[in-house]
Order: sequence, then C-alpha cells, then structure tokens
Amino acid sequence: MKVTQSSLRVGELATGQALTVPLYTFSGSESSAPSVYIQANVHGAEVQGNAVIYQLMTLLESYQVLGDIVLAPLANPLGINQKSGEFTLGRFDPITGVNWNREYFDHQVDVKAWYTEHQHLTNDELFQAYRLMLIEACQARLTNPFGITTGHRLAVNLQSMAHQADIVLDLHTGPKSCKHLYCPEYDIDAARLFSIPYTLVIPNSFGGAMDEAIFCPWWQLTEYATGQGREFLVPVSAFTLELASQERIDLADALEDAKGILAYLSHRGVIAEKVNPASMERFGCYLKDYKKFHAPKAGLIEYCASVGEPLKAGKPLVNILRIDLYGTEQAYQAISLPMDCLPILHFASASVHQGTELYKVMTNVFSLQSS
Amino acid sequence: MKVTQSSLRVGELATGQALTVPLYTFSGSESSAPSVYIQANVHGAEVQGNAVIYQLMTLLESYQVLGDIVLAPLANPLGINQKSGEFTLGRFDPITGVNWNREYFDHQVDVKAWYTEHQHLTNDELFQAYRLMLIEACQARLTNPFGITTGHRLAVNLQSMAHQADIVLDLHTGPKSCKHLYCPEYDIDAARLFSIPYTLVIPNSFGGAMDEAIFCPWWQLTEYATGQGREFLVPVSAFTLELASQERIDLADALEDAKGILAYLSHRGVIAEKVNPASMERFGCYLKDYKKFHAPKAGLIEYCASVGEPLKAGKPLVNILRIDLYGTEQAYQAISLPMDCLPILHFASASVHQGTELYKVMTNVFSLQSS
Amino acid sequence: MKVTQSSLRVGELATGQALTVPLYTFSGSESSAPSVYIQANVHGAEVQGNAVIYQLMTLLESYQVLGDIVLAPLANPLGINQKSGEFTLGRFDPITGVNWNREYFDHQVDVKAWYTEHQHLTNDELFQAYRLMLIEACQARLTNPFGITTGHRLAVNLQSMAHQADIVLDLHTGPKSCKHLYCPEYDIDAARLFSIPYTLVIPNSFGGAMDEAIFCPWWQLTEYATGQGREFLVPVSAFTLELASQERIDLADALEDAKGILAYLSHRGVIAEKVNPASMERFGCYLKDYKKFHAPKAGLIEYCASVGEPLKAGKPLVNILRIDLYGTEQAYQAISLPMDCLPILHFASASVHQGTELYKVMTNVFSLQSS
Amino acid sequence: MKVTQSSLRVGELATGQALTVPLYTFSGSESSAPSVYIQANVHGAEVQGNAVIYQLMTLLESYQVLGDIVLAPLANPLGINQKSGEFTLGRFDPITGVNWNREYFDHQVDVKAWYTEHQHLTNDELFQAYRLMLIEACQARLTNPFGITTGHRLAVNLQSMAHQADIVLDLHTGPKSCKHLYCPEYDIDAARLFSIPYTLVIPNSFGGAMDEAIFCPWWQLTEYATGQGREFLVPVSAFTLELASQERIDLADALEDAKGILAYLSHRGVIAEKVNPASMERFGCYLKDYKKFHAPKAGLIEYCASVGEPLKAGKPLVNILRIDLYGTEQAYQAISLPMDCLPILHFASASVHQGTELYKVMTNVFSLQSS
Repeated sequence: MKVTQSSLRVGELATGQALTVPLYTFSGSESSAPSVYIQANVHGAEVQGNAVIYQLMTLLESYQVLGDIVLAPLANPLGINQKSGEFTLGRFDPITGVNWNREYFDHQVDVKAWYTEHQHLTNDELFQAYRLMLIEACQARLTNPFGITTGHRLAVNLQSMAHQADIVLDLHTGPKSCKHLYCPEYDIDAARLFSIPYTLVIPNSFGGAMDEAIFCPWWQLTEYATGQGREFLVPVSAFTLELASQERIDLADALEDAKGILAYLSHRGVIAEKVNPASMERFGCYLKDYKKFHAPKAGLIEYCASVGEPLKAGKPLVNILRIDLYGTEQAYQAISLPMDCLPILHFASASVHQGTELYKVMTNVFSLQSS
Repeated sequence: MKVTQSSLRVGELATGQALTVPLYTFSGSESSAPSVYIQANVHGAEVQGNAVIYQLMTLLESYQVLGDIVLAPLANPLGINQKSGEFTLGRFDPITGVNWNREYFDHQVDVKAWYTEHQHLTNDELFQAYRLMLIEACQARLTNPFGITTGHRLAVNLQSMAHQADIVLDLHTGPKSCKHLYCPEYDIDAARLFSIPYTLVIPNSFGGAMDEAIFCPWWQLTEYATGQGREFLVPVSAFTLELASQERIDLADALEDAKGILAYLSHRGVIAEKVNPASMERFGCYLKDYKKFHAPKAGLIEYCASVGEPLKAGKPLVNILRIDLYGTEQAYQAISLPMDCLPILHFASASVHQGTELYKVMTNVFSLQSS
Repeated sequence: MKVTQSSLRVGELATGQALTVPLYTFSGSESSAPSVYIQANVHGAEVQGNAVIYQLMTLLESYQVLGDIVLAPLANPLGINQKSGEFTLGRFDPITGVNWNREYFDHQVDVKAWYTEHQHLTNDELFQAYRLMLIEACQARLTNPFGITTGHRLAVNLQSMAHQADIVLDLHTGPKSCKHLYCPEYDIDAARLFSIPYTLVIPNSFGGAMDEAIFCPWWQLTEYATGQGREFLVPVSAFTLELASQERIDLADALEDAKGILAYLSHRGVIAEKVNPASMERFGCYLKDYKKFHAPKAGLIEYCASVGEPLKAGKPLVNILRIDLYGTEQAYQAISLPMDCLPILHFASASVHQGTELYKVMTNVFSLQSS
Repeated sequence: MKVTQSSLRVGELATGQALTVPLYTFSGSESSAPSVYIQANVHGAEVQGNAVIYQLMTLLESYQVLGDIVLAPLANPLGINQKSGEFTLGRFDPITGVNWNREYFDHQVDVKAWYTEHQHLTNDELFQAYRLMLIEACQARLTNPFGITTGHRLAVNLQSMAHQADIVLDLHTGPKSCKHLYCPEYDIDAARLFSIPYTLVIPNSFGGAMDEAIFCPWWQLTEYATGQGREFLVPVSAFTLELASQERIDLADALEDAKGILAYLSHRGVIAEKVNPASMERFGCYLKDYKKFHAPKAGLIEYCASVGEPLKAGKPLVNILRIDLYGTEQAYQAISLPMDCLPILHFASASVHQGTELYKVMTNVFSLQSS
C-alpha cells in the first residue's frame, strides 16, 4: 500500500512565505471502513509524534489498508521553527501567548434545533449531514470578514481536515513525561488498545483541545438522540496520545507506539490484518484527580520522583536547594505530598520561580480491567 | 497630606529574590468617604500609568484627602523586568504564555445562597460581610495546598487589596493607542468624569480582568437584592483606563490624566475640593461593536489610519507591502473596512504574519451626552 | 527597463522549509558601468529598506540602467519572521545570541603574498582575479566539512553576491533614530550624494559588518599597491545607510531615500540620466567620537533629546522616573552630558535596567563641505 | 570552620530592584596560604555549580581552612531569572544577545612598560602591585562616565573580586554534556587533581571568559619577566569546570565534584588536610582539535553518540529525520565524521535549523599521564 503526499496551507509568514503542513494519505480499499486522521507536533517541542508517524507509515506499507488514513506530521510549522535559546518555544504563539492547543473552534451546536430539523434522516444520512455542518462551520470561520488570528487559522484548518475522519489521533508529549492517554469517558474501552499504561479519563466536554473539538459535537448529538429515543454509538472517536518527553526523537520507541496505534486501527477495522495490543498493566485516573503541584517557593529543583512510578505519601517529590539561605533549614528541603500518587510529568527546567508547575500527578488511580 | 510607603510581596524569583510591589497610602480623614485602590503596569510594557500615579501623588499632597487611597505602581515586577530584545515582553507569563491580566480570581459567588443567609443585615453590614467574604476567598486561593501559578499569585494578591476599596482603577495602555476607558454598562455616567474621550461599554460579567473581578460580584449582589425587592446602588466601582501607548513615559501628559482621575475622585467625595472634569466630547461603543481586524495576508505594514480619528468606510486602514510580489497587483495594496469606524489602537510592529491583530476599531459609535 | 526576479537559498528551517531571499536584477546595458548590490532588512525589525528598494525599483523602471543592479530585500528571512511579543526579535540569532550583522567573513587576505603573485596583471585583470579570490573564499566557507553556523551561512551567501558588485549598499535602521550613513574614511566624498544629513566616518578596517567585509580587502589591496608604487582608486565602494527607525514602513519617506540612492548611482554612472543629490546641510563625526550612553541607573525613561537635533551640554538627555523612590530626590531626575552633542538614536523601550544603552550621540561634529 | 555571608551588588532592574549575588567567605587561618574565588551559574541554565558549592561549603565546615575562600553561587541573577518557555534563557543578555561569559574585561596590560617601572620590587611586592593595578583597572571600568553595559557591569564586578584571589574556579556546564575542564597550557599538571576525565588545553590568551581574564595578565607578566631573566611561576591559577549538563541539579553528583575541588585545594595548601584526587583515567585535547559540528541540513535529530564515550570514524553521530521527505533517501539519514572522536557535548533540542551546532567533539585525544 503506497502513500501519496500533498500539503496544506495554514498561514503566511511576514516575509510572505507560506506556512504549510505535509500531508500523507493512504487510500483505503473499503469505503465502509472508518477513516483516520493523525497529526503530530502541534506544540513545537513535541517532536516524537513525527517519528511515530514515520514508523507507522513504514509499517502500513506492508498492510492491507481498508479505511482512508491521513497523516499530518509537523502540524505547526510556525511553532516548530520558533526557537528561543537552545530550545523550541513552541507551546504558544510568541506574539500573543495563546496556547496553540487551545485555538480549536468550539462549535456550540444547537443540537436540539439541528436534530429536530434532521431527525427524519437515516443514521448514515444524519451523520453525513452533521459532519458536513461541522466542516462548513470551520470553513466559515476561516473566511470571517474581520480575519482570524494566526493560531485560530492553523487550528481550524487542521480541525476541518480532522472532522472528515471517523478516528482522530493527536500526538503530543509532556515536558519530562511518561506515556499517557487522554480518553473521553464514554470511550474508555479504547484505552486498552494503545501501548500506553496510563489513561486520563476526561469529561465529554470542550476544553479547547483537538480531541475535544472533534468528539464533543458528536457526543452531544448522540446524547440528545438517545434522549429522543434513538440509540447509536458515538460515531467519531478522538484521543490525545502523550508519547513521553518533548525535545526527544527515538525511532525505536516510536516503533512501539506505532504498533500500539496499529493495534487500535486493527481493532476498528481500518486495516485488514489482526494486530494485538501490547500486554501491559493499564491504569486510569479521572481528570478531577489529576493534580498540578506548583512550587511553594522558588529555588533550584532536584526532581526526585520518577515519572510513571508510584510514589507513596510523604516521599519526596522534589528537593529545593536555596543556596542563598545556606546555613538555615531552608537551604535544602524535601517537598512531598500527603497522599499516594503517580507522577506523570514534571517541569523541564531545574530552577523555578514560586508558582511554577513542578509536577502533574495522578491520584485515586484505578486499574483498567481487560474486558 | 503626606503619603506613607510600604510594599507587598507577590512572589519569589528562581534566585530567591522576593518580587515586591511598592505601595503608597494616603490615609483619609473621613471614615465614611469612599476608599480607593489604583494600580499600574500589570502589563510590563504599559508604563505610563506609573507616571500618572507619580503626578497624582504630587497633586494629592496639596489636597484634603477624605477617603483612604492606596496606589500600587509597578504592579507586576516580573513582567516589567522581562525583556526580549529592545522591548518589554510583559504581556504574558514568559513560561506559560498566560496573559497577566487574565489571572484574577473568578469568585462565582452563589449569590442566592449568600444573600439568603445574610439578608437580615443592614446595608452597611451586608456590604461589609460581602467584602470580607471576597477577601477571604482570595486568601484561601493563596494558600491552596497544591500551590497556585505565578500569575495567579500575583493577581490574587493585588485583587485581595483591591477588594478592600470602594473605587478601583487599573491603569493600562494599548500598543499604539489613543486613550480609552473600559466602563461597565451600569456605571456609564462615570465615563464623563475622566479625561478620556472614548469609552468601551462592557457587560456586567467576568472576562478575567481586574475591573471585572472587582465589580462583578457586587453587581451580581445588587441585581439579586433588587430582584428580592431591596434596592441599592452597586457599592463598588471599577474601571480600566487605557492611557495611550505602551513603552512611553510622558510626564506632561500624565498630569492631564492625573487631573482626570482627580475629577472623578472629587465627584465621588474622596477629596474635599471640587475638581471639574476636562471639557471634551466623549463617545461610547458597546463591546460587541469593538472589532479586531486581523491581517488578511502577511507583509510589511504601513499604518494609515490615525488612532482616535474617525475613518470613513473604504478609506485605507493599512497598506501592505509585499516586495516579494513586486511587479504584481499584490505588491502594494490598501486594505479598508466596509463601514465607518473609529480606530482605537493598532499593532506595534511593522511586519506581520497572516492573522496578526492589526487594529481594534469602534463601530456604531455614539455620543456620551452630559447628564 | 524591466526587472527580473530570482531567489537565493540561504538556509533551511527545522521543518525542512528553505530560507530564501528574493532577488531582483536590472541588467545594465554597458558592461563597463559599475555594478551594484543593495540589500535590506538583515536585522529583522529594520524593514524600511524594503520600502526604499520598492521605490527605487519603481523609479529605475523609467531610467536607462547602464550597470547591473541586484537588489535583495527581506535579506534575513529567519530574523524577519522571528517575533517575540509584539515586536520583531530580529537583531540576533535567537539560539546563539550572535548579531546577524557580525557574521560576515573576515578574509584576512595575505595581501603581500597575493599581490606579489599577481602584480604582473593589468589593473582590470588584477581586480578580476582579486574579486574571484574573494568569492571563492566565501564559497569555500560555505562548504566547510564541519558545517558553519546558521548566521554565517546567511551572511556569507549574501557576501558572496555582494563581492560581485562594484557598489554595495546595506540598508539598515536604528531603533528610534534619525537618518545617518556609515562611510569609510577614504570614500568620504560620497557622503554628500545620499539624502542623509549625518555621516559616521569609519576606519578602513573590519568590524564585522557587510560594508566593512566588502571594502576592507579592496582598501588593503589599494594601500599595498600604493606602497609598491602602483596607484589606483579603491575599486569597490560600500556603505551602510541607516534609514531612520525600525518597525516602521513609510513609502513617502522611502521615496526620498530612493532618490538619494539614485543620485549616488547617477554620480557613479550606473544610470545614464543625471540625478542631483538633495540640497541639505551634511555633518560628519569620527567613529571614535560616536558615544554610547548607558543608563547610569535603572528606571522608567522619558526621552527628552530629539534625534537629529543638536543638544547643548547640560541639557537633559533623559528624565528617569523611579516611582519606587517617590519622596526622594531620586524619584524624578534629569540626566545630561557634559558636552555638546548630536543625539543620533535612542533605545526603543521606556523602561530599562542599569546599563542599557540609552542614546548614541555624535560629539565633535564637523561640517561636510561641498567640494 | 564557619562561613560568613554577605552580598555583592551587580546591577539594578527596571523596577529598581537591586541585582545581588550572595557571597560566602571562609576566612583562612594562614595569611600565606593561597586565597580562592569560586563562582557558579554565570550562564543562567547552568545551575549544577551551585549544588557543588553547597556540597563544598558543607565539607569545608569540617576542614581546617588555611587560605581565604570566597564563593559566589547564583552569580548572574538576571540570567538565572530569565525564562523563555520552560527553560532558562540565560546564555546571553536578552536585550543585546551578548554572551554573559564574554563580557570580562581584557586588560591589555602594557607589560613591558609596567614591568620596567616596577622591576625593582621583590616578587611579593611585584605581585601585590600588579594585582592592585588589575583591580583598579576594573574599578575604573565600573565608573566610566558614559556608563557600561549591563553585562559588562556584572562581569567586571565579579572579575574585580576574582582578581583578589590566587585560585579562581568558574563553574559551568554544557548543554547535554559530560564533565570537562578548561585548563591553560602552562598549568596542565593541575588537570589531574579535579574529578574530571576530559581536559581542553587552551592557549594562554584572552578569549573573553573569566578564567582567561584572570590568568592571562599574570601569564604575560611571567613570560615577560622570564624574558628579562627573572623566573617565577605564574602566580595565579584559573580554570573553568564544566560539570555535565545544564538544567540539572544532582546533589550526589555535586558531592563528587566538591571532593575533586577539595583535592585541588588540598594540593595547593588551601586546607590543612590531605585530600587525594579521585583515581580515573584522564584525557586531553588541544583547543584547535576541539571541533564544532554544525547541522549540514535541517530536521529532527536523534542523538546517537553518547557524550564521554569514544566514537569511531564512520559511526553515526546523529540520525536526521526529515519526515517531509518521506519516501526518499533523505527521510532518515545517519551522519558521521570521517575521524575518531570523543563527543563532549551535544545540542539540547531535538529539532534544528541548518547550521545549528549539533556536537562538540575532541579529536586527537591524548592521555594525561600521572606525574
């Protein structure tokens, strides 16, 4: 199965050069098979998803692809190319500060009105009409007479493509992080298919990210139809995969994640072959129990807790060195939490102002049983 | 009347140095007179408010001050000291990208429950209890066991002080801007007292800024009480003053704005002397009619429209030079709007990516009649 | 006379996109006429040179062009597109901090050895051989087996083109600046031809900038040949024009500077028509008398001295507002110099750390008499 | 032995806050013992030296200290507190781009004149006079009537303290780096005393760094005196220690380096106790053989070569992923060097523009024999 290449224009730089995203398409052989959209590197420093797409494409060349698969690596050219010192300053628009991953369009569909008007349609027709409406709303955004922001233009262009797919995967990483998955509560069974041990179970509501922008309108439609006595599964799935740490390319590890994605695609019938998910213990945590720990004081940070390894209450998360306070108790101090937790990621720098987010930790972790 | 100086600790830098804000206090002679809180420079590049505070303090030394006045210049030390190239990168936290002016605490008071519990109180007691509740909620934020972000710590510290006053003024500037005022709809009569020709009339709801953080809970209380048959004026006033352009110190102009503030304080009985507002035409615009115009394409920008001067439909807002397209019609092109407008501010740089916010313009401008 | 467009590849961004500079060429009708290379915008925020090139090209279309003219606007695509907040952070490589304008190649020609080997050549042959040697040395840099830095690649690519011309103009601007010219001492008569009132007379030595990189090797050759009893004029001319302030596009003003350049080109026989220089008083200052004044203390800056206007000794250059010191003599203080001077440019921001370069001023200014 | 704390003022921020460096002093019991100055963290992200100073001070409390020891951790408060995204942008002045470590004062002593005037002095007197001259020259810089830059003020303040010591250690780190030492050629025997396996042997000339600023004038004096027939050892020693990677605090590893420093101090008689250097193989490389390898093309980088481990010619240094070129030979390519080398450090980010410095490698490495 061979891939074809095209590109998507998502903006224009001050010098006039176009901002473009490379697109790779595998055309599936079965029109009834689900279609897929996978993007990577919307945050500029989170490059590993590109390596995963590379490995996934290499693998797919040997498989029988049934559903269309569109892959968009290097999805944020402005963010990726924005350096500040030795690192990529790719988390937010350098002009406005707006997080590139909070620029997706919130459709705020009036589901009741829309459904009332379209309820006579068959399921397939209904889904097709709804999808078209979502895509057209994105296109309308892009042609706003007062223009739209740089970040919104990028995001809505990507979103417009993503709305065309049945399965959407957004590949991110944390700063210094173990692998984890953002999964909507209604779709929790999917969490056992990827090669990712930790899953954040998120509410079925819009928080600004790509996955939410995709599944929320569909979940709302499904909920409303159910309330009207018409039952169907949420027709579209969307996940954010956090594939370890930023500023890191590791092709061997990328192959593992590509296989995990392949297992999910196999399960969904996107490829003809059977690919089993990796065998591993998997754990979940509700978003409300996912805690951000901010530096209670400034200083130099020795990160003690390893990401992906359970930490007992009272064990040091960090040590804070305050050499300006040498000779006092404050000079070198351990900081711990009062409850057991699972550290998922920590800050990238070893010196922090008061209030810097030092760690994100899961609390009240539960096992995700095999079904 | 002499001022006393103190300082407020709002954070701590990585090296351990405290972030502090200088505070100046005029102690009023009448406890029944309204108290005032004025801050400046929450956005790092918006320095002119400090000059206004300087001039205001110099003036106040010759007046009879009835109500307490607290002034907090240089309110965001981290933002003010954060340089990037020859300019101050002080609009957002350089680590997270979060706008310093969107970090205030949204109380989301359950007004019904609170009022039901406290309705037996006299107005004075009611207001005192409500104020105390707001301040205590801020203090509780500051002691969150998981810590709070650097920006939230700064904002809530300032907010906690502001809640103690009856009148709150937040001094900002635009990028390249004429003077304008943000004024809540319920308090529109106040707009005629400052030395500011243009007023944005904002809804009585929380959008993240200081003024909204202050007046919203009080407006909600007032609304609810009115619904319960108990009428009083909104007990607290809050405004954002945009005092022309950032990266500019002009003491002569600052004196004009200090006199404008004095006129408002005189009107409110904070000083014993009568100070009249400057005579000028004043205009208003509803926030929904305040339009952001984004660059429809990238290029080099010649800003044609002067801020503070009405612009007819079809007249050029900007010319865009695209020297990479020399020899085509796109090489040098005028961009205009299809409606009359009043340009209030424009972007600071002369080269822009597609989507950069070029201008903010008022449309549907109306006259603010003298009452 | 029509222009043809091409482009020069000067690097590659992380996403793989080529960094290219647009090139415009007017092919002269006389091979004996001097050839010209003009570039603009090597510092990202210094955009006005592009407008000057636009106006110059528009003018040249009506003239008879004798010598080849190559124009390279937008010469530093990475620098121009590098934003940080509302401004262009285009003065140095954001990764290394190296000033884009200090990356040109210092040939350090062993003039004695080279001349000894080539002295048998006619002047024309000598110059041609020397030019070829300079260009080949640039090409050799570009193929260094250990690679070269991003900035060096850009600079040496531009320099390689510039070495092919007899006249090189590098269009810059200051931060907040009046127009001024950098002119090598040996070529001071040229300063009367451009539309620029103030000229810095620089030594005939390499300091890292484009103009120096171009004229130095030729001046060294000329000096050495003179010492050997062979007299000729320095065969190549190079100047840096500082065309007022950065972050500013003004087409009307650009037309004036385009005419000034045309007057110089006319004088040199690059165009057939006679174009006279503008009539204005012109002044000079030796580089050793060009003084940088650094902030003696930190604070908020009111810039008092207008650029381009003489300032008497003891008159305020700036006022420094230190509102944290309100009530002391330090709160608002004028700073002046003990000698007469001509302020040429000042810093762009209104708040400064101690040591920030506030002003550059000419001292010991002299009149440049008409010859 | 107890330490005393003081602080050094090195500048002032825009808000008026002083920039200060904490100083810790152990007062030695023997005035004839050499005195020591140790600083850390002149580059903002290079924090580990502070941990080494912490461990060293903790150790010194149990030793008999003969010579005065002054320690200056957190030596660059502006650089340390300057964040850009999740990392410390502390390598250069954010306003000017000037590397903080290239701001030291180059004395350019006229050694011949000075020596001629002072040759009648005894060695002790001679050294004392020379030292005084160096310190006074620094003080004169700090009081330049036109002011000095922010970075120069910091550097010369630190240098002025360093000149008072006989032994100067400047603690740095690389980006992703193994431990290595910069050692002047004349003092190569010292390299066997620290706990550092790799040593760069640098010429005895000024390149802008602290170590060079300290030892160069003394080496020049020694050379000149030798030429005049008066022999003495270079009276002052200075080294730069590169203690692994930036953005990393590791107290256990810091203890090893503190012991290494202690071994050197013991050897020099600064402490009374005998502390032996760690047993390890040590290797050297001349600066001319220390090669910077720049990215020959842009892309995503998989760093293959481990720092501190020899790499054979032809073995991959990096793999470059160019997913925009998927399907071509350029998509994933190994890059190697044609000679054996020892990779010392590599770039911190995993995506690079063309020309980024990817690795620094030692070539022509030789063993540093024990004497």
